[in-house]
Amino acid sequence: MSKLKIIPLGGMGQVTQNMFLYEYENEILIVDCGIGFPDSYMPGVDILIPDISYLLKKIDEGKEIVGMVLTHGHDDHIAALPYLLSDLPEFPIFGSPLTAGFAEQRMRDGKIGRFVTVVNDTNEVRIGNNFSVRFFPVTHSVPDTRHILISTPEGLIYHGSDFKLDPNPVDGIVSDLEHISQLANQNVLCLLIDCLRVEYPDWVESESLTGPAIERVMAETQGKLVMTLMSSHIHRIQQTINAAQKYQRKVVFIGRSVEQNVEVATRLGKLIIPEGMQIDKKHIEDIDDKKLCVIVAGSQGQEGSSLIRAIYGEHRILRIKKSDTVVFSADAIPGNQLTFYGAINELCRNRIHVVYPAVMPDLHKSGHASAPEQQELLSLIKPKYVMPIGGDDRHRFKFFELVASKLGFDENHVLIPDTGEVLGFENREFSVVDEINLKPQIIDGLGVGDVGPKVLKDRRSLGQAGIVTIIIPRVRGNLELKKIEVVSSGFVFMKEAEDVVQFIKTETARVVSEELRKKTKLEMLKILVEKRISRRLYKIIRREPMIVCVFMDV
Amino acid sequence: MSKLKIIPLGGMGQVTQNMFLYEYENEILIVDCGIGFPDSYMPGVDILIPDISYLLKKIDEGKEIVGMVLTHGHDDHIAALPYLLSDLPEFPIFGSPLTAGFAEQRMRDGKIGRFVTVVNDTNEVRIGNNFSVRFFPVTHSVPDTRHILISTPEGLIYHGSDFKLDPNPVDGIVSDLEHISQLANQNVLCLLIDCLRVEYPDWVESESLTGPAIERVMAETQGKLVMTLMSSHIHRIQQTINAAQKYQRKVVFIGRSVEQNVEVATRLGKLIIPEGMQIDKKHIEDIDDKKLCVIVAGSQGQEGSSLIRAIYGEHRILRIKKSDTVVFSADAIPGNQLTFYGAINELCRNRIHVVYPAVMPDLHKSGHASAPEQQELLSLIKPKYVMPIGGDDRHRFKFFELVASKLGFDENHVLIPDTGEVLGFENREFSVVDEINLKPQIIDGLGVGDVGPKVLKDRRSLGQAGIVTIIIPRVRGNLELKKIEVVSSGFVFMKEAEDVVQFIKTETARVVSEELRKKTKLEMLKILVEKRISRRLYKIIRREPMIVCVFMDV
Repeated sequence: MSKLKIIPLGGMGQVTQNMFLYEYENEILIVDCGIGFPDSYMPGVDILIPDISYLLKKIDEGKEIVGMVLTHGHDDHIAALPYLLSDLPEFPIFGSPLTAGFAEQRMRDGKIGRFVTVVNDTNEVRIGNNFSVRFFPVTHSVPDTRHILISTPEGLIYHGSDFKLDPNPVDGIVSDLEHISQLANQNVLCLLIDCLRVEYPDWVESESLTGPAIERVMAETQGKLVMTLMSSHIHRIQQTINAAQKYQRKVVFIGRSVEQNVEVATRLGKLIIPEGMQIDKKHIEDIDDKKLCVIVAGSQGQEGSSLIRAIYGEHRILRIKKSDTVVFSADAIPGNQLTFYGAINELCRNRIHVVYPAVMPDLHKSGHASAPEQQELLSLIKPKYVMPIGGDDRHRFKFFELVASKLGFDENHVLIPDTGEVLGFENREFSVVDEINLKPQIIDGLGVGDVGPKVLKDRRSLGQAGIVTIIIPRVRGNLELKKIEVVSSGFVFMKEAEDVVQFIKTETARVVSEELRKKTKLEMLKILVEKRISRRLYKIIRREPMIVCVFMDV
Repeated sequence: MSKLKIIPLGGMGQVTQNMFLYEYENEILIVDCGIGFPDSYMPGVDILIPDISYLLKKIDEGKEIVGMVLTHGHDDHIAALPYLLSDLPEFPIFGSPLTAGFAEQRMRDGKIGRFVTVVNDTNEVRIGNNFSVRFFPVTHSVPDTRHILISTPEGLIYHGSDFKLDPNPVDGIVSDLEHISQLANQNVLCLLIDCLRVEYPDWVESESLTGPAIERVMAETQGKLVMTLMSSHIHRIQQTINAAQKYQRKVVFIGRSVEQNVEVATRLGKLIIPEGMQIDKKHIEDIDDKKLCVIVAGSQGQEGSSLIRAIYGEHRILRIKKSDTVVFSADAIPGNQLTFYGAINELCRNRIHVVYPAVMPDLHKSGHASAPEQQELLSLIKPKYVMPIGGDDRHRFKFFELVASKLGFDENHVLIPDTGEVLGFENREFSVVDEINLKPQIIDGLGVGDVGPKVLKDRRSLGQAGIVTIIIPRVRGNLELKKIEVVSSGFVFMKEAEDVVQFIKTETARVVSEELRKKTKLEMLKILVEKRISRRLYKIIRREPMIVCVFMDV
């Protein structure tokens, strides 16, 4: 048995759903509690949350959660809190000021009345009997982001999730490299490090370049400047406000996430809106367009977002006119290209001037460290082991090739565990000590975790070719093969629609009669009908709608 | 009535489905005949083809198709031939050697026995009484690409579809800028120009850079080199063969599209495979891995492609081992990121070394001109009007802003017609002279054009939340409300599944009884049940499965 275990419940081979457990003897420390976003293989699913079965089992066995630490205020690090906290015993939660503010807001939204203890940067916080943590300020696309140095009886772990090394951040708070470099002498056992942008060979440019770009666009805008961005990007909102002030425009915030985050950040002093500059959205019509800067949610072109409703003329308040300029100060997240560029194309069709990073790169700078920055952090800390986190599988493997191996790390010291592998450390040596089964936990409508693989598979085939339902009535136990009904949705009948329906009816009757002679059981009969009709239909029309056979007692 | 009309049936506000009609008096000349690719708003659809209703109507009115010219051998310019030719009268088809070869192959696949007349570059070809065409060689990602100068009684039209200005192409045939620049004095009336990569500010790098990159990877590969690329990219295949020769590897082609294109290109002398180098895929096991270079189809990570089957261990012949290197010499086409990077991630999980453009940019160079190249062509030709084609809407509008306006063109001389607008030219003046209704023509299974918007909408909602079918039996005209059946697929019942079914039955019975008292007609009743149950279900479970109500006569 290893003394110290690290159990990644998410954030390993996937960018999102970040949640890590640190287990030592009887105690468990949690870092982050984030949601994930479903891809097109999971149609209709709202969000994903980490699978905490392992944690629940350990609690049953008498282990104690001594605390949770939050690295920063992005939803893939904090937004699973309202879904998971109610299943767990109480424990203290720690975070930087803005992270605490955002996390408490998410919990309030989920009707969870818990609070986050705000940690000042210089304090070392004791958690339980075995852990103590120190917070290192780093730059990222949300203010108050922290790296966490976790001191355990087995040694020091540096939990370096999302960061970049911005030499000139908007709030002036650079990544605390001086303190970080002092760690080199402290023998860090393992460094966990954000590897998402390992494919990029150049140091990421400073966020402070986006402000001047926004200014340049504003200077040339005749009507409203309509700006969309990630709603938690407080520094970029600040730069937009500064530009608006320079050009004597009032600011209006539209969209739930933007309004909420601005409220929290302003309350905590992380966003400064000069007196009299902010206008309530209800009064937007009172201000001349050329005196307006609207910051609106929907930078990925998401269906139903305020921006998309405005683009299609369906927003109650925001109207986009030919004299306006729309600014996308965000890039398409992989998987969102269709909606992102769909929104831009629609604006173009409507003859609205639109600018976006592909034509004006300074409108967006990533918040994630590229290869040389990852290399810089790794070479400052000089840990015994390094584990890339927060990326897809290819990023983790390329981290070995493009970063770690260049600093002399060999395969045994770059940890790339498979999903579910539990990492153990004893006497400063690493080994895989356990394997747990992590299942996707899905939020779909009001249900939690109740969409199985079968339902998702059904949805995919329904979405591809529709469904044909074959209803066979049963009167007093006898199947009425002359009264079979066929109903279809999302399935294309060819011009010979009636022929296809008749074909299905005849074939079904034939299959059923044959099988009844063989005394096939009803449940089996249903499956046989579905399989055979599907196969025969495919032969004549090259399509595979889902076939459902129903026996209907009358 | 304008004398000359240009009718874009595709390639306008969309990258694909290229097909343009040039109409003068009684004659129609067609340029290109390509397919399109459905996005996620068209689930289950195989391909899209241009809507030729306008053309059919004109033929009915006595107009004559005098010929068709093909610009190059990509599927979005030629692959609709087998679907559309059978509906049209015979006419001659013209193309460069490889374009003719690829087009004839597509037609053979579709059991159309037509041929393409090969045009030598220097010849002027008379087509009908009103048109003559000249072919200009340009560089692009398939050999033998041409721009077409169309001479009409109204003036010269330069049809400049897909191209780049590669100073150092693999076959040594540079874009024919010398002849093109002579056109400046010839008063070209309108230039149609590929605008796809207008967002890129730098001249596209030469295709000849990819060869050395492939060589570098090959030099370091222990086992097989498994290379995937666009199957029509004959120049890149040539460079791979050259590298393989240098490193004494045999080449094997795997995948229908790759094998077919290599066969055609070799037969036409456009691809040179040194004697004895090509091995039949059936004999792949006879050759030592370190002596093998496999070129395989599936560079977008498409489901069912040879590469994907090999990655998942399901390919009959190709096995990918830990000592192999897989090379993606292609970028993800927008919309394909998920499958493209999904394939790379899976290879990484299997500990297979993989390289791709994001980590080695020289592995892929685009075949499309960027803004400065577009500007170069425009400034050489100096047409009166210019019309960006082959891009999304944003590319067409940005072409005005980033290219044309910089050369002094004003809005009246940059033509950005809406979908369906017919462009007219008379006395060298442009105007929109007609508007036609272009409907998406969909190929889905064996059916052509028979998937309506309703079916696609149904598929989208089926794919999001599944379906609930409510069956109400009717015995001798009476609805049996106590025997209602509920069947669902792809729909999640919560833990209280039985309660939900019961709720649907009860609510349905209630709606039906109410409406029967009001003597609502059956067809209306069905719609009312579907609408109300949907709304009530959403209230309690926040999901919107498709609801289908069926009356079942017994």
